[in-house]
Amino acid sequence: MLSTSQIPFKDRLKDVAKVVEGDLKALLTFTPPKGISWPDRLFEAMRYASLNGGKRVRPFLVIETARLFNVEGEGVRRAAAALECIHCYSLVHDDLPAMDDDDLRRGVPTTHKKFDEATAILAGDGLLTEAFVILASPKTHEDAKIRSELVSCLAQAAGAIGMVGGQMLDIAAENEEKNEQEIRTLQAMKTGALLRAGVEMGAIISGATNEERARLIRFGEVIGLAFQLADDLLDVIADAETMGKATGKDAEQGKATFVGLHGVEDVRNLLREQVKEAEELLIPFGDKAATLKEMAHFIANRAY
Amino acid sequence: MLSTSQIPFKDRLKDVAKVVEGDLKALLTFTPPKGISWPDRLFEAMRYASLNGGKRVRPFLVIETARLFNVEGEGVRRAAAALECIHCYSLVHDDLPAMDDDDLRRGVPTTHKKFDEATAILAGDGLLTEAFVILASPKTHEDAKIRSELVSCLAQAAGAIGMVGGQMLDIAAENEEKNEQEIRTLQAMKTGALLRAGVEMGAIISGATNEERARLIRFGEVIGLAFQLADDLLDVIADAETMGKATGKDAEQGKATFVGLHGVEDVRNLLREQVKEAEELLIPFGDKAATLKEMAHFIANRAY
Repeated sequence: MLSTSQIPFKDRLKDVAKVVEGDLKALLTFTPPKGISWPDRLFEAMRYASLNGGKRVRPFLVIETARLFNVEGEGVRRAAAALECIHCYSLVHDDLPAMDDDDLRRGVPTTHKKFDEATAILAGDGLLTEAFVILASPKTHEDAKIRSELVSCLAQAAGAIGMVGGQMLDIAAENEEKNEQEIRTLQAMKTGALLRAGVEMGAIISGATNEERARLIRFGEVIGLAFQLADDLLDVIADAETMGKATGKDAEQGKATFVGLHGVEDVRNLLREQVKEAEELLIPFGDKAATLKEMAHFIANRAY
Repeated sequence: MLSTSQIPFKDRLKDVAKVVEGDLKALLTFTPPKGISWPDRLFEAMRYASLNGGKRVRPFLVIETARLFNVEGEGVRRAAAALECIHCYSLVHDDLPAMDDDDLRRGVPTTHKKFDEATAILAGDGLLTEAFVILASPKTHEDAKIRSELVSCLAQAAGAIGMVGGQMLDIAAENEEKNEQEIRTLQAMKTGALLRAGVEMGAIISGATNEERARLIRFGEVIGLAFQLADDLLDVIADAETMGKATGKDAEQGKATFVGLHGVEDVRNLLREQVKEAEELLIPFGDKAATLKEMAHFIANRAY
């Protein structure tokens, strides 16, 4: 068998995505007690919202960060799946008519279009809650301290001072001029928090030292910013076909973007700087960090 | 000072509600990093949705169950507040136009009416997530195993096979005939799960034995059923003024209720049986259980 570092990055990404898809399917299959009516429609909607062939960037970060410490197995995969549940719920709620009002995601109807709004709201709530059911189970890690830290990390990243707060700022930011610092905060919360959490959860479950953890968190923040810079660039430069969605949408909606503030060239340079910093942060982990390094490039490359 | 058992039940309920209100206010106050824009509107909406002078029945159950074991203090109160965050988020989402479409709650505008739909969705998501931030903090209990069990208990009670699933069944049940077993399942999930969780969380944080815990869980289930039976009775028999909301609404909406199935008299008898069982379950806890016993009566009395 090939060692991980010998498998081309894109194949590795695909392999992990397949594993995550399978794990989510298993974790989101609920068996009814005998003779009891059961909210099948809810479960269907939760699976519809999450078993969608995504790239699974966030779970990939959990799994690959744990690999730096030679940690793998069911526990890491459960942590990865929990994080993806949060990401998927956020997409369901973001797509709702009262929010971004999107009919399509990855070319198929959004959850509220496929089912209905009430079911989509509940499916999102269900996925969000299930993330913590998964993390708190002893199956995720035998040490309750680790489980508790995972819960704390994910809840903070996902909540009011993380992703949900960022989403609120994003809505409030429409048609409002924002300065550099404001855009950075907004993006660090909205998009960055879950990417950072992926790396941090990988570090937590592997028992990384405080110094290693701090370094990896910083790596998570840097690729989080890179992710958003690339997204902003793509919104402006990619053609609709490449993206599978309308481009220039953010600008049209008056959303605050880095490109709007600095222009394409400066944002490209800033993006390159992030990738360089990400690589430097990984140096102490040596060859083992090859995949995470490639991940940083992968995130940025979408926009080169 | 009076010992707890000497304070009349309704005063005790009010005192605890005041404490819970104060704790929620403190826990839902977020301090922005200097010079950073901050989603104040989200935080306002989260506080609006939860600082509403409710009776705080669920936190009361956590606090009074812990008192059976002489356990009190910040940790118990945090657990109680976390549970109430879940209850409050569920009300925000249930009130949304796509769900029950209610404009008023306790005589004031619902969160989406006071703010807007997007903010209400996010405020609900924020409250739901914050519950787990609160529980996973070492401030809740020094033993991570206890924290992890609290997270697990609350997430299961609130999630797809608990409250969220019950809400889905309730929506699906409109205008559909349901048998006894189906109504019981629906109600045990929708309303019962969080009441049961209140008692169970109180038992967990107090280090109750398995036998004590099982007994208290059963108590939680019994008062959960009582709560719903009383609610169904009230929907039919109370006049609009007493309830502060339209009555007969469930029947009108074709929702499955116990009264619809059995009639008022049989449901009254069933309710009395629950209270009797609740009292019996508390016998081993002696005088200390006086307040919980009164709670069972309080829940039922609304409908006598």
